[in-house]
Parts: sequence; C-alpha cells; structure tokens
Amino acid sequence: MKLLQEKILNEGSVSGNDILKVDSFLNHQLDVEFLNEIGKEFKNRFANERIDKILTIEASGIAIASIASQHFGSIPVVFAKKVESKNLDKDVYETKVYSFTKDKEYSVKVSKKYLNSGENILVLDDFLANGRAALGLKDLVEQANANLSGIGIVIEKGFQEGRSLLEEVGVNLQSLVIIDSIDNGEIKFR
Amino acid sequence: MKLLQEKILNEGSVSGNDILKVDSFLNHQLDVEFLNEIGKEFKNRFANERIDKILTIEASGIAIASIASQHFGSIPVVFAKKVESKNLDKDVYETKVYSFTKDKEYSVKVSKKYLNSGENILVLDDFLANGRAALGLKDLVEQANANLSGIGIVIEKGFQEGRSLLEEVGVNLQSLVIIDSIDNGEIKFR
Repeated sequence: MKLLQEKILNEGSVSGNDILKVDSFLNHQLDVEFLNEIGKEFKNRFANERIDKILTIEASGIAIASIASQHFGSIPVVFAKKVESKNLDKDVYETKVYSFTKDKEYSVKVSKKYLNSGENILVLDDFLANGRAALGLKDLVEQANANLSGIGIVIEKGFQEGRSLLEEVGVNLQSLVIIDSIDNGEIKFR
Repeated sequence: MKLLQEKILNEGSVSGNDILKVDSFLNHQLDVEFLNEIGKEFKNRFANERIDKILTIEASGIAIASIASQHFGSIPVVFAKKVESKNLDKDVYETKVYSFTKDKEYSVKVSKKYLNSGENILVLDDFLANGRAALGLKDLVEQANANLSGIGIVIEKGFQEGRSLLEEVGVNLQSLVIIDSIDNGEIKFR
C-alpha cells in the first residue's frame, strides 16, 4: 500500500535496527481519514472471504478494527482484553501471549458470548513482528470453534518470524506494508 | 438519547446498585453502526463549539472517539495511555487518576507532541461516575495550554459525584444518557 509507505516515511520515526514508531497516526494519535484508507484496503485484500466479525486486541487494534468494520458492512468488532478487569465475564476464552518487548507473558481473554461456533472471523492488528499476539488471537478463534477467515496487519516487520509461523499453520495473512529492514534509520520496504 | 436508553435496557446487564455492563456494544464487542449514532449525537451536542481534536483514554474510549471523529470532519483523535509503554515518548504530560473500581492510583500520559497550546479539545469517554478520569484528562488539556471545548460521555451514573465535580470547574458536560439509579436490577433514567 503505497500511501501507507509514504505515511511511514513522512511521519514514522525509527531507532536501532528494529523499532518503528508511528504514534502520529496509528498508536497514540489517530488519523481517522487515513484509517479509512486502511479499512478500504483491508476490504480489498479480503474481498473474497466470508467475514462475520472482526477480532482485534486492545489498545491500538481498536481504532483500526472499528474504522475497518465500516468497509465490511459495519459488522461487529470484538477486542480481546490484555489486562485483568473486574467487569469481564468469568466465562472467557483465554490464551497466553509472550511479549518480547516487555519480556513477559500476559493473558489475553475474550468473553465466550462474543466468539461463536461457526462464525467467520477476521483478525486485524497494527503490527506483526514475532507473531505471538496473532497466534494467540488465532487460538481464541479456534477455542470458540469459529473459522479464521484471515489475519490483516497494517505494518509487518518482515525481518521477524511472524509470517513464517502463521503461514506454517495455513493462515491467509495480508499485510498492508512489509518492512524488510530498518538499517541505521533507513526503512526498506519489500 | 432515546435509542441509547433502549439499547441499555435491551442489552445491558446490571448487578448490585451501581454496576452496569454494556459489553455487547461498547466495552468489549463494538456495535459500529450504533457507535455512529453516538457520534452523530455528540456532534449535535457540541455543534456550537470549536473543536480541533478529540482526546480520550484507552481502551474503551478509542472506538467511541474514532467513530465520532468522522462526524466532526475526521479531526485527529488522541488516546491517553494508562500503562507503561516502552515506546511512549519520555516527553509527556502526566496526571494521576484514582480508580475506585480497582482501588488504586494510576498514571495517565499523553505525549507533548499531540496536545498543543491553543488547540480546542473535546474529551470523549464511555462512562462518567466519580469523575476522576475526566478530571485527569482535563488536567492534561490544561498542562498543554489547550482549551477544553467540553466533555462528552456516553453513559453517566447520575448518582455519583462526577457531574458536580466537573460543573464546579465550569466544564460543558454532555452525557447522552444519565442513569439516576440502579435499584435491584432496575435502571431509572433521568
């Protein structure tokens, strides 16, 4: 997605060989008009799939999924929760995800009410790197006996193992941009 | 907002005298079409205000603010962060918010890049109860020398002190519904 590559080059900031920050439009401030372009592109990428519901994970996935939903007929969005919440149902699907950034394992939960057997689920998220969060969401879909229609990612770090882990298990993975390397502050797209 | 009252009566679940869960459309699963109705109503309520940017707080505020933004000409949304994040700038506005639900104080932060002097800021959030989160967001706006155009709330618990605390300090507070009591499972709207 050319427009997204330009946006990343214009507004993103990189450090070291693997950190890209896109706080100005995706992870802290949200460019809602641009999120609609992202939503349209996800619809193009998954035009041939049956999709009943979008599953994402808090917090940055929420805006992406909510805006994208409008391009899929405003289907329901469910966001998986990362943190303990008093108000969350006891009756949940739960999976463990290891975060390399934070060097710890955390629980990801979805109430059983909102993922149902036979539903066709599109998973959307902001970044794909080592793939652990995406695999966790896939696990939740499978626990519910729902079908994973695909996984849509805004920015893939192509130099990490996420894609190979997901393709190994047959996931239809669509990333809007793939970054091959971040080398001394220079981003190379695939 | 009549439609929202009906939605709460049809889909909400209450327990005790103060807990209302609206997980099916606002706090876990998101009804995107309905969020657009909410966004439209916020636009009506703040039609006469100058608004450059919407400020909310993760996680549930993100969908509300993103969808609402579209009814304000797709102005930028900024979501304040509750948790420590490696990737957050060091240069932040920070405030402390006491959570009665969790019985602890937590930090709320916004990068200084995304709240600017002179900007007109509309704060949006899902619930207003004791008002501490709303006051925290107001504090962030003031630290940035920005102007608080108003605070828009989806569901106000009218039996808690949030409104009086905010009105005391001159906030233009607009709640789409106000609940006067939750009494043995029965919701009374103002």
